[in-house]
Amino acid sequence: MSKTNPGFFFEDYTLGQVIDHAIPRTLSGGERAMYHALYPSRHALYSSDEFARACGLHASPLDDLIAFHTVFGKTVPDISLNAIANLGYAEGRFHLPVWPGDTLHARSKVIGLKQNSNGKSGVVYVRTEGLNQHGSLVLDYVRWVMVRKRDMEAPAPDTVIPDLATHVAPEALLIPEGLDFSHYDTALTGEPHRCPAYQIGEIIDHIDGVTLSEAEHMMATRLWQNTAKVHFDATFRDDGQRLIYGGHIISLARTLSFNGLANAQMIAGINGGAHANPAFAGDTVKAWSEVLDKADTSAPGVGALRLRLVATKGSPAAGALKDADGRYLPEVLLDLDYWVLMPV
Amino acid sequence: MSKTNPGFFFEDYTLGQVIDHAIPRTLSGGERAMYHALYPSRHALYSSDEFARACGLHASPLDDLIAFHTVFGKTVPDISLNAIANLGYAEGRFHLPVWPGDTLHARSKVIGLKQNSNGKSGVVYVRTEGLNQHGSLVLDYVRWVMVRKRDMEAPAPDTVIPDLATHVAPEALLIPEGLDFSHYDTALTGEPHRCPAYQIGEIIDHIDGVTLSEAEHMMATRLWQNTAKVHFDATFRDDGQRLIYGGHIISLARTLSFNGLANAQMIAGINGGAHANPAFAGDTVKAWSEVLDKADTSAPGVGALRLRLVATKGSPAAGALKDADGRYLPEVLLDLDYWVLMPV
Amino acid sequence: MSKTNPGFFFEDYTLGQVIDHAIPRTLSGGERAMYHALYPSRHALYSSDEFARACGLHASPLDDLIAFHTVFGKTVPDISLNAIANLGYAEGRFHLPVWPGDTLHARSKVIGLKQNSNGKSGVVYVRTEGLNQHGSLVLDYVRWVMVRKRDMEAPAPDTVIPDLATHVAPEALLIPEGLDFSHYDTALTGEPHRCPAYQIGEIIDHIDGVTLSEAEHMMATRLWQNTAKVHFDATFRDDGQRLIYGGHIISLARTLSFNGLANAQMIAGINGGAHANPAFAGDTVKAWSEVLDKADTSAPGVGALRLRLVATKGSPAAGALKDADGRYLPEVLLDLDYWVLMPV
Repeated sequence: MSKTNPGFFFEDYTLGQVIDHAIPRTLSGGERAMYHALYPSRHALYSSDEFARACGLHASPLDDLIAFHTVFGKTVPDISLNAIANLGYAEGRFHLPVWPGDTLHARSKVIGLKQNSNGKSGVVYVRTEGLNQHGSLVLDYVRWVMVRKRDMEAPAPDTVIPDLATHVAPEALLIPEGLDFSHYDTALTGEPHRCPAYQIGEIIDHIDGVTLSEAEHMMATRLWQNTAKVHFDATFRDDGQRLIYGGHIISLARTLSFNGLANAQMIAGINGGAHANPAFAGDTVKAWSEVLDKADTSAPGVGALRLRLVATKGSPAAGALKDADGRYLPEVLLDLDYWVLMPV
Repeated sequence: MSKTNPGFFFEDYTLGQVIDHAIPRTLSGGERAMYHALYPSRHALYSSDEFARACGLHASPLDDLIAFHTVFGKTVPDISLNAIANLGYAEGRFHLPVWPGDTLHARSKVIGLKQNSNGKSGVVYVRTEGLNQHGSLVLDYVRWVMVRKRDMEAPAPDTVIPDLATHVAPEALLIPEGLDFSHYDTALTGEPHRCPAYQIGEIIDHIDGVTLSEAEHMMATRLWQNTAKVHFDATFRDDGQRLIYGGHIISLARTLSFNGLANAQMIAGINGGAHANPAFAGDTVKAWSEVLDKADTSAPGVGALRLRLVATKGSPAAGALKDADGRYLPEVLLDLDYWVLMPV
Repeated sequence: MSKTNPGFFFEDYTLGQVIDHAIPRTLSGGERAMYHALYPSRHALYSSDEFARACGLHASPLDDLIAFHTVFGKTVPDISLNAIANLGYAEGRFHLPVWPGDTLHARSKVIGLKQNSNGKSGVVYVRTEGLNQHGSLVLDYVRWVMVRKRDMEAPAPDTVIPDLATHVAPEALLIPEGLDFSHYDTALTGEPHRCPAYQIGEIIDHIDGVTLSEAEHMMATRLWQNTAKVHFDATFRDDGQRLIYGGHIISLARTLSFNGLANAQMIAGINGGAHANPAFAGDTVKAWSEVLDKADTSAPGVGALRLRLVATKGSPAAGALKDADGRYLPEVLLDLDYWVLMPV
């Protein structure tokens, strides 16, 4: 019997099934330094212990996306190994900051199943939780993935499609304990624009671009122990290119969005997201954002902004997203809908 | 007089000579993060402080190969600078775990010399020791290297070939103090297979592949302060490629072997090894293992597995190693014989 | 109104203006590990806590150039965003070591202005200070940059060219408190050569070469939060190459200079510097040094050496710098004049 992990196929999932993902991971200042080397990360709260203290935290937490990718990476051997496509995200919330020294593990529950009409694959919906060494929830999100069947004759499960919120309601966002932007100093953060400066519907072109390299995306993906073969093995494609992990584009777009959203300090929620087109080494990635909504929070001086973050290649106009038939333009790599915390 | 280091030539070595290698090195969580970015490293004991504590250690040690490469790197200016080939390893043992904050230095003793019949070079055998800041031995191994002569007229030394063990006897393996796999939880490690699941003679195809890039192998090699010119300077070869440090292939193969050997947590001994063919950027590296032997240890729940780890390029069949004349196949990069500690 | 940072244009600077640069940065052992991966860094004082303690420090500080690049990176959004060229450095001094855990920020004062005769740009002189979390000065230097005008009709400022020292006087160099080379052990540092072994006028060919890769220079530049577009976006140039950050070449040359200057432990001053020609991925960088001066210091066993450090591509002869007309040879990338501390 083969000892390597064959992964789960569509018929291996059952509604309500709980999967404890293997290989807990302790994070340190080393992962933070790598993140700064791999992405143009400049948000002051994740750059400076002193700045984080001035915002009511005891030190600078690890970037929210370090926590997200670490948890996501844990799920790959059980959820994505036989996946055809990562279809979407919903109901993502960040419950607690992650600090250097924390150990994260991940757990997923199957909350929906739908076999495709071709009988060869199906869609699996999971709610994934990331937990720290105290067993406390640090983040959770729903993801759905199209997964191959091993045995085409395996019977289809009852179709259950979970009822997912179109977005996280602003009052459901969780604010890190102690967070206080009352004394927030924009002279330290790179831009003066606070919540009131942003208008719903406003489009922000983040201008800066980064040309992707094979070495960087492989290092970034490996850092989260995400070992999906297509990201590392150039023999999978005739053109010898490696498919770039969608999370690499999320982090690149988020950090590029600093230029115009420097005070969008923390990610509080992920409402939805689509990896619209694949990215490859040599592509030059740019980003634009649209302000979707604004809200108050219970924390002093802390507002919330709901943003659409779009990563592109080939420099289409900021704001261009879909064609007349509602399909993503071929230049669009990522369409992410998320909440950030920003000083009011 | 030139101030740069000319390195040692064959006639500079004398039997019994002790060389204290320069530049002690303090390691931290930063080197661990880099290791995770450079290799698909997933063994739970090196990923999670919590898991390591559940195995009786006070925290997660640095990967055994971080210790090995750091010590090896120290020896390069004195042993390998004028080397033609790295011929073999033997009698390698890991004496103590290395922890973040430890400072390592290295020392080698010349234990054998044999001038080649062409009179232009010779083989030098050294036993290298890695020591921590307390002067305690953390690892040692024998290596032999073919080294150029500076002066072809220099007289040949008496030939002394050390009597090296074909392998480290299992009872000579050193188990980290406190290591206890009695409560080892395979749900956390990624695979259920423990020692009894492996049969002597069994071949494991680790399936996953990684295509090498110039940036990654240079960063990995530099991280260990290994500055051998051929790894960094593309003008040494007509094809503009850099020869990849053999240790990069060792780490890549070892981490690829997770898939099928996820519970082979710690390296306890290195019995032998050959860098059968050179590797270059663009090569896609895969790995397979053969179970050579099994043994008990004195530590609770801890068994030992002797493995052959083979790294390849060009995807030959798992198990294919040599041709009819006993020469390594051109697709074979590495043939490493080593002991791991695994739960029983 | 656009929310992205347009940067300062020439007419935005006024004499005496003080600019507090944004985004303080906490550094850790992670940045040190990255530095070791990106550069062949081997100076013992920055490699080993134990060695640093034997030199009178409480631990190994972060490399002086980590401090320099971090401070420099902070200034980019305010000083270099609309720069045409980085023209020179002067009067650089390292006041205090930077330790893992320190948080750095930067501040610049405009000390000179001169509009170019074409009316389209001008030269801005700034004195930049790097400060730690205690508000203590860790380093300062003067830099002058040619910056575009936004409005060609904007009036020219009064021309003020600061009176800059040709070099930092040796008695003005600052020695880290406690630094003591009385018990300095060259067996640990890789070379025997101390101050007296170097002669003024001596040329040292550092021999080793490194071929540049896109991934490495982008990671290095990003690590210092230097986000100048030309280093990351391949669409800026017709040949698809990214211009490499001059500081990458400084660090590469300084670390290559280990081979022949292994005991040039700490950088104490920067007297001047020119990025003579641009560097691109694929170039193989080598370095040579010229001993310009020698001096005593007040610290026990500590001498100072003034060096010219030259980085080249295409392997011109060591010592070749300028043509008959006084122009830098096309193979010269960097000409840096600096002070190091070395045991006597």
